[in-house]
Amino acid sequence: MILNSAHRAYMALALQEAQKAIKKGEVPVGAVIVNDQGIVAKAHNNVETKKNACYHAEILAINSACKALNSKFLDECMLYVTLEPCCMCIQAIYTSRIKKLFFGASITPYTKGLIDNSPKMLEVYEGLLEKESQMLLTSFFTSLRNKKTTL
Amino acid sequence: MILNSAHRAYMALALQEAQKAIKKGEVPVGAVIVNDQGIVAKAHNNVETKKNACYHAEILAINSACKALNSKFLDECMLYVTLEPCCMCIQAIYTSRIKKLFFGASITPYTKGLIDNSPKMLEVYEGLLEKESQMLLTSFFTSLRNKKTTL
Repeated sequence: MILNSAHRAYMALALQEAQKAIKKGEVPVGAVIVNDQGIVAKAHNNVETKKNACYHAEILAINSACKALNSKFLDECMLYVTLEPCCMCIQAIYTSRIKKLFFGASITPYTKGLIDNSPKMLEVYEGLLEKESQMLLTSFFTSLRNKKTTL
Repeated sequence: MILNSAHRAYMALALQEAQKAIKKGEVPVGAVIVNDQGIVAKAHNNVETKKNACYHAEILAINSACKALNSKFLDECMLYVTLEPCCMCIQAIYTSRIKKLFFGASITPYTKGLIDNSPKMLEVYEGLLEKESQMLLTSFFTSLRNKKTTL
């Protein structure tokens, strides 16, 4: 698959979501769900603000997309997320039957096996706007270390 | 650990939640979250009603408990669920740092590895009110087959 400007534009939008997260003191991860008609849902990591460790960008984007489409499955949808999904999120992506997953940075290599060995029909494209996604995360954690706080 | 009447009572409450689900045409799975003070959250599978394939009983109970306790982690909590958690839910249970998991019926042996090999400090007790939990599921799927509908 050739990644065209539309793919980059959607990931840029996910990055904008990640920037919203960083302004709120959240780990900067953003997600966008699109279908053939365009954008269905946008969300960012909201763990600290909403006080729920499961409120990752992907989960919130899936919840929002299901509401927007009034559908329990998202089988015509593509998910763009700035960071490789964690084990919980990758399972939620399978459960909601998302068709294609694009992610940027990769700091959780242990989910790789889950993605590679999945029997599900999920197409995965990694490294889209990887540098930009990674830079946002690095600057967030560097600033956190300088403040000597932890999440 | 000796399972006492309090454990059975909480699982009976989870079964009541599962019965609410069956009345709505949902796969009958119920969950209850408790801490030292008592019941924190109750929920049942709501995939069809809320049109979201990720709205399993455990996920909804976790969301509700985080709101009730105003806490992103549930490290003092125990989760009672009538059916062995799926891969998505077990990861959500780890992510939210639930302390103890009690489940009833077991129809998803593939999550067993995830539970057994987890590095997390989750204590797991299986088979609590197993027969009752299983009977509810069997009667639901039998009735579904008789109606020749699928979920």
